[in-house]
Order: sequence, then structure tokens, then C-alpha cells
Amino acid sequence: MKSSSRSQVDPFIVMDVMEAARKAEDAGRHIIHMEVGQPGTPAPEGARAALAEGMEGDALGYTVALGLPELRAGIARLYRQWYGVDLDPARVVVTSGSSGAFLLAFTALFDAGDRVGLGLPGYPSYRQILKALSLEAVGLQTAPENRFQPVPGDLEGQGLDGLIVASPANPSGTMLGKQALADLIGACREQGISFVSDEIYHGIQYGERAVSALEITDDVYVINSFSKYFSMTGWRVGWMVVPEDHVRTVERLAQNMFICAPHASQVAALGALDSHAELEANMAVYTANRALMVDGLKAAGFTRFAPPDGAFYIYADVSDFTDDSLAFCEEILREAGVAVTPGLDFDPERGARWIRFSYARATEDIREGLARLQAYMARRAAL
Amino acid sequence: MKSSSRSQVDPFIVMDVMEAARKAEDAGRHIIHMEVGQPGTPAPEGARAALAEGMEGDALGYTVALGLPELRAGIARLYRQWYGVDLDPARVVVTSGSSGAFLLAFTALFDAGDRVGLGLPGYPSYRQILKALSLEAVGLQTAPENRFQPVPGDLEGQGLDGLIVASPANPSGTMLGKQALADLIGACREQGISFVSDEIYHGIQYGERAVSALEITDDVYVINSFSKYFSMTGWRVGWMVVPEDHVRTVERLAQNMFICAPHASQVAALGALDSHAELEANMAVYTANRALMVDGLKAAGFTRFAPPDGAFYIYADVSDFTDDSLAFCEEILREAGVAVTPGLDFDPERGARWIRFSYARATEDIREGLARLQAYMARRAAL
Repeated sequence: MKSSSRSQVDPFIVMDVMEAARKAEDAGRHIIHMEVGQPGTPAPEGARAALAEGMEGDALGYTVALGLPELRAGIARLYRQWYGVDLDPARVVVTSGSSGAFLLAFTALFDAGDRVGLGLPGYPSYRQILKALSLEAVGLQTAPENRFQPVPGDLEGQGLDGLIVASPANPSGTMLGKQALADLIGACREQGISFVSDEIYHGIQYGERAVSALEITDDVYVINSFSKYFSMTGWRVGWMVVPEDHVRTVERLAQNMFICAPHASQVAALGALDSHAELEANMAVYTANRALMVDGLKAAGFTRFAPPDGAFYIYADVSDFTDDSLAFCEEILREAGVAVTPGLDFDPERGARWIRFSYARATEDIREGLARLQAYMARRAAL
Repeated sequence: MKSSSRSQVDPFIVMDVMEAARKAEDAGRHIIHMEVGQPGTPAPEGARAALAEGMEGDALGYTVALGLPELRAGIARLYRQWYGVDLDPARVVVTSGSSGAFLLAFTALFDAGDRVGLGLPGYPSYRQILKALSLEAVGLQTAPENRFQPVPGDLEGQGLDGLIVASPANPSGTMLGKQALADLIGACREQGISFVSDEIYHGIQYGERAVSALEITDDVYVINSFSKYFSMTGWRVGWMVVPEDHVRTVERLAQNMFICAPHASQVAALGALDSHAELEANMAVYTANRALMVDGLKAAGFTRFAPPDGAFYIYADVSDFTDDSLAFCEEILREAGVAVTPGLDFDPERGARWIRFSYARATEDIREGLARLQAYMARRAAL
């Protein structure tokens, strides 16, 4: 059997690093993981307790396609708490992680051949999912002076049908302020470009709070997840907020493409919504980690980065050291015992001179990782 | 924002029946559910115990995209136990239910515009998922004398790129014997048609055991799930077996489109693999239900159906009573208090004269449902 053209998506380059890290660990080495994009913490205790109870009393069969009504209501309440926005729970779609939301959103909005813009550097799966759905991913080279976020001028002449924007962004951690986000949404509306706002890192922020596209307009798709702030990556439960007149379309797609998001994970997510203290304790760890990283990376010689507004990544320009970030990451893994991600996954053009450090894990690991980076980079400079 | 053409999939007609049933229940009526395609039993106790333990000791973050290695190995062992087939676990892909497997398989095999055949009557989501992926679903009208399964002659002149076949089938419950399946696979191979075998009802069988396409060739995609035999519908965990040279393609797609199947569900599935006694007890219930249904439906006047080989459905020709199966199902719900599914979801052309009865729930419910159907149909005949 032959495979399709659209299935020939790019490999994840970070997987090579992770595989090398795994082999090093199998060989007895201790590796600090600054490559992974997920919290080291489990789902909140309240989430696990809710599921333990749910498994006793409920068969946990299919839920309705849009998700448990009480979970949709709980998510809607979050918009009041976080942004002061009144949101009708009928517009909330519970999804199989943000991954499921991307598949639904792109299918609901775009036909084969449509062009969808995304800022580079950015989350690599946007490009690959778009390709898998026979859509054309249009990479927009963002500028450091725009803090690696697209601006209205970037849309000109691109013939876009859609735009996906993430704030806070992965890998840069930068956020769009309310005016910048409104300008971008306004430019899209004028040009008939459907706007998808990836808000998966909302809640993980270090100064200003992140702005939701729903504070600006109802005529957008907003995607979020329980993976990051709620520390539930492996549970595959996220959500999407869609315009009222898109709900039926998305419901029918979800019925057929997914049937429902995992019921057990939906029950756990309900518990997570009430786990405020534990989640804020996680946030305190990220805040402490970020401060250590900003100072510690500079001390190691990585000085060319912007302190992140949100998420748990630092994206650093390493052109002083290399123009082959993959080789550089392999070197750092081998010599320093720290796994980091080459920028190539996020930006096929400029990423050869950038790397991403994640600080999602325990503070103790961050401290040790920074000490190793400092020691190695000092040794390297002395060569 | 406008929605795409491909997102305009057909509504599930059974949803109208389910909504009417829910309203009747809200109004205080007792309804017997013969419309639902899922077991009433929860995940096996061993599955729930495995997860309860897993939640204590493990953060349950992302798994690798192809699934937990021990689960892939356990699934591979199932092929030895069930079919006497040696299967390399490297060819097993753990998916987010069979739904996730369909999305991966259709994306891996077909490009926009490709034509994929499926027998009518059949599982309605095949058609809708294909449309959502910009593929052309080609309905093949199957014949009662072929037990509602496609035969090689049905492929002629259709210009197909792919064919998806289910055995046991939904809604008919019929199975393809080894020779019939081999003939179909052979015809596909000759014509360059990629073959996808939906084996989701394997294990739920009443005489001969179901034949896997892997007993015939390695050059197929096989899709299965923990939903039916393992009684884990809402957990969204299934699997796919692909040809060795397709593993890397499917892995990259899965990394980007899903990241992984739900970790908690994978842990539970591992427990389910060892729950033989409980699953066989469920099978004893289906077997008893089937016997009651075959006799009870006939006693109610529904005589035109073939006793199912597998799954938990009976698909009955009701053309003696109606040429509007939707109205007939509404009537049965209203007058007899039994929810059943009109054939229109499974076969847009002939389904107006067929209905599907599910017997997946407790035997007590089946008995009561049959008594209600018999009483109502007798009343109806006397009008």
C-alpha cells in the first residue's frame, strides 16, 4: 500500500534529542530534562480524587459529543474569573486535548487547499496538522522587535484564509497585549481571515495576565487545554470556544471524528477546576524557576533572550556559539548532561541558531541543570 | 467567520431519537434503551484497579506517540491468543479510540479527493469522517444474499483508492468468513485499493470466531478498540496495526495530530487485557440477550432479519410496517417506551425501511423491552 502525500509530515527534531537522552539514561547517566514541554507534576489531587470517586459509581461510557454539561459550565465560569467575560456554556466544546481542538477547528473552518498563517517560531504541530488536513501552512517570519508575534503587516500579500496565534507563545513565551491582539483580529476581520487563538498557556504568566481573544470579539475560535496550567498533559482533555453559529457544525464533526473526549479525563478535569491552591503552588514553582533561569542562563553565557511573559520556556539566540543548533544540543546533552531543544522544530529557517530551554520541572532540577550548563559553557569557552 | 464545505456533515438521525428519549425520561417515563451502541457495563474491575494504582505512583504525563510499550506488547499477544498470528508489537499503534485510528488511517493512506468505498448499510461516521478529511465516500449497496457485506464485484467501475470493511458489521452483525475476506482483500490488491479492516467487534461473536485481516496478509490497516469487547467506550483507547513500512509515517502523524492516546486510559487498558473472567461474563450476557432478541423480536412481529454472527445489534427489515423508519422509531418510543435506531443513519437510501435494535445492555432490560415491543405491536396490529 502506498501512503498519502499529506502524511509525509516533518519529523520532530527534538525526538532525536529525547531518544539520545533516553539512551544516555539507559547507560546509567543522569540527565536533566530541559527539553520537555510538560509539567513534572501530576494532575491535581482534587482531579484524581474526583476520578477515583467517579470510577466507583459511574460506567464512564460515552459522554455527549460537546462534553459533560457541568464541565462546560465550569469552563464558562473560568472566563468570568480569569477575564471578566460572560460566556454561554453552550459555546464551549470539550475536546481530546488541544490537539483534538486543532483538528476540529481547522476542519470546521477550512477546505482543502486553504492557506493558514502562523508565526515562526511557533508550535511545530500547527504546520504538520495543517498539512495532514490538506491545508497550506504559511509560515510568517516574525520579528524580534515584535517579540516574535505576527503583526497586521505580516498578513499583507499572503492570501490567507486563516491565522493561528498563540499568546503566551511557544517557544518564545511572549504575550500579545490587548491592543496588539485587537489590531491583529481587526486586520483579519477586514481581510476575511478566520482567527484561531491558541490560549493553552493562559494562567502561566509572570506579570500582566494573558488576554483572551474573547475579551475582544465573539467571532473567533479560542483553544485551551487542561494540559499546562492544570497539569494534565497525558489526560488529553482541552476545550474550544466557538461562535454561537458554529456550535452545531462543530458538534456534528465532534460526534463523528471523536464521539467524545475521554470521559474519565472529563471527570478529572472537573476536579481540577476546584484545585486552586495546588495549581497556584505549581505557579509559584514556575515563577521561582523562571527567576533562576533568567539569571542562570545569563551566567552560563546565554544572554540573548527576552524574559518570558508566560509559559515555561526561554528561547535563546545562540548564534554566538553555533549555526547548527541540533549539533549544539547534542553537544550540550553529551558534555553537560542537559537535554535542550534545537530551534529547528519551531522555525525551519532561523531555528538553526536558536535553542529552547524548558523550566517546567522541579526547581531542584532547574538548579542542577543551570549549574551543569554554567560549568560546561565555562569549560567550552576555555578551549 | 464562515465554516468550510467539508464540515457540513450529515446529522446523526439517532440523536433525535435519543433527545426524544431523554425528554421522555425527564418527564418521568421509563425508557428501555435499545438504541445505544455501547455496553452498560463499566471498564473491567482490573482496568479500574490498574488506574487507581497508576494514579498513585505516576504523573501520567504524555506517553510516546505510539503508546505505552507494554500495552503494545499486550495487544500483540492478543493476536496470538485470538488468531494464532505472530505480530511484531512495533506495528501496533495505540490510538484515541477507533475514532483516532480512522483519522490516522485515512490521513496516512489518502489524499484530498481520493475515493474510499464502504458497504451500505454501515457505520455512519465512516462517511462523515471521510468528508471532513476532503475524501469522497463511495457507498456500495450491499446485498442481503451477500449478508450485507461488499463482494469483489461491488468494486467494479468505482475507481476506488481505498475500501473500509467491518466484520462483524454494524448494524447487521454479519461476519465475513476467511475465504470471503481473502477474496475481497485479493481484489483490492489487484486494483491498488488500500484495505482498511475495522475489527472493533471482534471478541463479541456467537458461533465461528471473527477472522482478522492479519490472518490473510500484513499489507492492510487493521483497526480495533477497547470500547466493545473490553467494555471501555468512554475511555477513548483503541489501536491500529499497520504494515511495517507505514509505522514511521503513522508515528509522525500521531505525534502531531494527537501527541498520544490518553495515558490514564492506556493504563486502564493494560488492566483490561488481564480481565478474562469478567469479559467472558459480559459475553455470556450478550449471548443470552441475543437468544432472547431473536425469539422475542419474532414474537413481536419483526421476522425479517438475519441472526447476528457478532456485535450486539439486530438489523431488521420493517418494510411490512413502514417506509419511514424515523417516524416508526418515534412511534415505538412514544407508544412502547423503547428507544430504537432508524436505519437511515446506516443507509441513506434503503434505511427508511429498516431499524436497528441494540442488545448491549442488561438482560433484565432486554426482557422488559421485548415485552413492551410485543405488547405494542400486538395492539398496533389490532388497530
